[in-house]
Amino acid sequence: MSPEVEPRESTPVVTPPRGRTARLVDRSSHPATVVRVGDVAVGEGCCIIAGPCSVESEAQILETAAAVKAAGADLLRGGAFKPRTSPYDFQGLGLEGLKLLRQAGRETGLPVVTEVVDPRDLTWVCEYADVLQIGARNMQNFSLRKEVGRCRKPVLLKRGMHSTLEEWLLCAEYVLAEGNGDVILCERGIRTFERYTRNTLDLSAVAAARERTHLPVLVDPTHGTGRPSLILPMSLAGIAAGAHGLLVEVHRRPEEALSDADQALTPAQFAELAARVRALVSYMEEQGSAEGGRP
Amino acid sequence: MSPEVEPRESTPVVTPPRGRTARLVDRSSHPATVVRVGDVAVGEGCCIIAGPCSVESEAQILETAAAVKAAGADLLRGGAFKPRTSPYDFQGLGLEGLKLLRQAGRETGLPVVTEVVDPRDLTWVCEYADVLQIGARNMQNFSLRKEVGRCRKPVLLKRGMHSTLEEWLLCAEYVLAEGNGDVILCERGIRTFERYTRNTLDLSAVAAARERTHLPVLVDPTHGTGRPSLILPMSLAGIAAGAHGLLVEVHRRPEEALSDADQALTPAQFAELAARVRALVSYMEEQGSAEGGRP
Amino acid sequence: MSPEVEPRESTPVVTPPRGRTARLVDRSSHPATVVRVGDVAVGEGCCIIAGPCSVESEAQILETAAAVKAAGADLLRGGAFKPRTSPYDFQGLGLEGLKLLRQAGRETGLPVVTEVVDPRDLTWVCEYADVLQIGARNMQNFSLRKEVGRCRKPVLLKRGMHSTLEEWLLCAEYVLAEGNGDVILCERGIRTFERYTRNTLDLSAVAAARERTHLPVLVDPTHGTGRPSLILPMSLAGIAAGAHGLLVEVHRRPEEALSDADQALTPAQFAELAARVRALVSYMEEQGSAEGGRP
Amino acid sequence: MSPEVEPRESTPVVTPPRGRTARLVDRSSHPATVVRVGDVAVGEGCCIIAGPCSVESEAQILETAAAVKAAGADLLRGGAFKPRTSPYDFQGLGLEGLKLLRQAGRETGLPVVTEVVDPRDLTWVCEYADVLQIGARNMQNFSLRKEVGRCRKPVLLKRGMHSTLEEWLLCAEYVLAEGNGDVILCERGIRTFERYTRNTLDLSAVAAARERTHLPVLVDPTHGTGRPSLILPMSLAGIAAGAHGLLVEVHRRPEEALSDADQALTPAQFAELAARVRALVSYMEEQGSAEGGRP
Repeated sequence: MSPEVEPRESTPVVTPPRGRTARLVDRSSHPATVVRVGDVAVGEGCCIIAGPCSVESEAQILETAAAVKAAGADLLRGGAFKPRTSPYDFQGLGLEGLKLLRQAGRETGLPVVTEVVDPRDLTWVCEYADVLQIGARNMQNFSLRKEVGRCRKPVLLKRGMHSTLEEWLLCAEYVLAEGNGDVILCERGIRTFERYTRNTLDLSAVAAARERTHLPVLVDPTHGTGRPSLILPMSLAGIAAGAHGLLVEVHRRPEEALSDADQALTPAQFAELAARVRALVSYMEEQGSAEGGRP
Repeated sequence: MSPEVEPRESTPVVTPPRGRTARLVDRSSHPATVVRVGDVAVGEGCCIIAGPCSVESEAQILETAAAVKAAGADLLRGGAFKPRTSPYDFQGLGLEGLKLLRQAGRETGLPVVTEVVDPRDLTWVCEYADVLQIGARNMQNFSLRKEVGRCRKPVLLKRGMHSTLEEWLLCAEYVLAEGNGDVILCERGIRTFERYTRNTLDLSAVAAARERTHLPVLVDPTHGTGRPSLILPMSLAGIAAGAHGLLVEVHRRPEEALSDADQALTPAQFAELAARVRALVSYMEEQGSAEGGRP
Repeated sequence: MSPEVEPRESTPVVTPPRGRTARLVDRSSHPATVVRVGDVAVGEGCCIIAGPCSVESEAQILETAAAVKAAGADLLRGGAFKPRTSPYDFQGLGLEGLKLLRQAGRETGLPVVTEVVDPRDLTWVCEYADVLQIGARNMQNFSLRKEVGRCRKPVLLKRGMHSTLEEWLLCAEYVLAEGNGDVILCERGIRTFERYTRNTLDLSAVAAARERTHLPVLVDPTHGTGRPSLILPMSLAGIAAGAHGLLVEVHRRPEEALSDADQALTPAQFAELAARVRALVSYMEEQGSAEGGRP
Repeated sequence: MSPEVEPRESTPVVTPPRGRTARLVDRSSHPATVVRVGDVAVGEGCCIIAGPCSVESEAQILETAAAVKAAGADLLRGGAFKPRTSPYDFQGLGLEGLKLLRQAGRETGLPVVTEVVDPRDLTWVCEYADVLQIGARNMQNFSLRKEVGRCRKPVLLKRGMHSTLEEWLLCAEYVLAEGNGDVILCERGIRTFERYTRNTLDLSAVAAARERTHLPVLVDPTHGTGRPSLILPMSLAGIAAGAHGLLVEVHRRPEEALSDADQALTPAQFAELAARVRALVSYMEEQGSAEGGRP
């Protein structure tokens, strides 16, 4: 047995705070949560997170970061550990990727978001990242969701492509139950029979999450559609459905990307999207409809 | 053999107009289609169709029609022939329902939309209705889609709950190939594993249909969600995704409805929805974004 | 209005025979149904229905019929009216196809099964066919299901690719409620995200239908998988799950078929399949397990 | 940063052994794999794995183990770390559960299978378990699949409820690429719209996996159906489709189980199932059809 790590004892069953009818995640349990990341308040107005699927090189991440900053992004995203379907695909730069992402964040002044895929990585990912992302494939990773619940970093929790709304909320409940209340939900498409889009972006889950929980809800139209031409209309639709912001893949030169090359926006496309989205948010706030039209 | 009806000979294979690469339904085949129904131009601005799931009585349809007219609906809907899952559920008033719907249309000045479920009914449904609806369950009804293609009435074609975008467009192609170019598409939700909503409203199919075809595209947020609380946000989201309008169930007293009682809006809820939707459409048109953000 | 056809009045709501808790389709309502087609008893032992997707020519249907007869098929199938996704695909030979199918049935002594897609065709389809098939795309065709309920011919009711078990049974209930008790159910695959197979053959629906209803249940492994290499194992699995027989596409030369060319079996492959299936049925009957293992 | 654990460097991209066209997992790469666990050869004949969902107490696991041993099980299963949808549900006994499972294995002579949910647990799980199970929710757990690839223990890899056949095989490829060739696949149902069964057991994936890979393939009819009455027919169907064995939940008193109480078999039901399955396997082997009927 490994000498420096103790066997895990049984995980004690957490007692629900006020019975199952009022879970921590429920809207009735808490006023609207605003997650603060540096100067950004996720849950107020509109938060736009942008950046490449993967950190690939110093030039790639620095140029892309500068471009999304100029276009008005609030946070920078980039993957260092990439869960890929095939073991023979690019798996990310690892620690080197984290350092480059941190550098790009420092140079642009943008807080950074990156995915964590292994609980053993948490210590040093927390050193470099401002927000910990749990990806759709890892939403059901039980040890990971518990561990991020013990961190003092905000968590961006993507909905699994096969998860019901209820399972998604219960996954957030795990994080909250461990003591970390800074959870941001993100809808990114579910798996259906439709083949024109990569997934089916489920915006009714956004509207439903808004009525069920006090946590902020974002939309990822990139993975949700897999088609650049659909990202702008689905971003606007996401905002109209009540989302608190977007997570969008942007690459300085999408055709050269090492992963998801066919779905990233160019910086110019992203700048137009950000302007259109900001304008819609302003309009909706004027309408007193910042809450997406819910009564 | 029935003396007055001739056996159908084989259906000759229609020759694709310009090869399979340019079908009648494709965006490249035709300028944007505007379907005219009375004074209403479906495909320009925003068309709102409202009314009860079923015509139930004279008082019910007349009151509801007056209410949706007052709230700004463009067309009146109401079912006379109801395809129901169980044979023991209310199946609609039939011919009597058509007459009441026609009367309500006349009194309010609203053109009327009603579902046709059997090709044998077409002759008299055409006498009473301004728009023929093919419901989601009948999208795959091949004889029905061909017969409406031979009518001189606009057709509202709902997407089947299990149909891909491509199959939906090919269904419209059948109608167009028979000579009827006045087809309005309507997304109403697909069947997935999610159980919080009755179906999963697929707004990316709306945005995708907008880029693939010249036909107008509506959204039905009532069947798409099955929850009154989600109808307003999903209506706004549908407009933002590029829809040319909405199809919404409204009942003077939803709790008394003989079908779909738990998902219809009250007249007051509908009035708020119509106002909010009209305002969003005005905003988007000012933005030069009436096309929902597509380039 | 067409002079020779009267408008349909409202369809009266059928009163459930003994309350909703004991529908005609329920297992508790009736002893196990055996549907007799000529000398064949569907619901006893194992019924194998085989033949081409479409009747294409006299030589094609006669040769294929002779081959499946020699290999031990009980019934001959062949489509004369083909519901196709695209209007530019082969739509079937119509009345000529029905006559050729009848001729092939007469020459081989096999009763024939063919799909009906339009209630207006029923009169003459009933003249030529021994069993009326309602296809998966038409399971939700409400006028068709009611009309076949008024015929004196057995009905083969395929499960819709998007239908729950409950909806499938309620569709059969429509036929039974109209007075036709000779309904044979047939599972043919549902639509899921899996792309290796054309559909996902749902054999648990076969086992579940066996415990819920007294009607016979068949399996269609051809459409269920779309891959010839999977038809034999899935046929054996279907029998083991409790199916009363199979519906298999066979073509004298599959590569020349005008529809579904890539999934039909050759006569030689079918002969092997029929022998293997018959042997398994004998084994299971010896085991006293003709009911597929249910207690 | 934690002093005793080094940051992970980037994961080097593994070079595919002979190009992407011949992956390690492909049937053409290797003769049929037989995984040896003690005296049991998984991939030859039929391997039956049985036991409770969770290890709950000494009496529960010892009694259940003795019962499944007497009924002819080859391996004993039992969960010590339970990934549960809600944090307020029973999470397993942890290390204590592993010890009890080991004890039950020793007393009955049955090798034991248990789920591992966290790569940090592997060291001591390997001390107690003979086979490491990766559950459906963790199929996409990338760090876990790589770590078990470095263990010298056989791995039972369940198909994710949302995974395509291709993704499942690529998950196995990760394990093989790390050097562990002892992988056993297990189909356990996918998520669809059907609500009568808990999942839809996809037996065509079993037949398809048999033709695509040299690895053994099992079926889990318990999670696949969620209904005890369907477990026997679906077990027989799985064997007929070509499965090399079963994974079945058995509890000495199902109604008292702390998890999945409504789907476990009693020892008596399991004894009947094992006898019926063994008899079918013998029959199929006599038929020269041990390969499930594939040509």
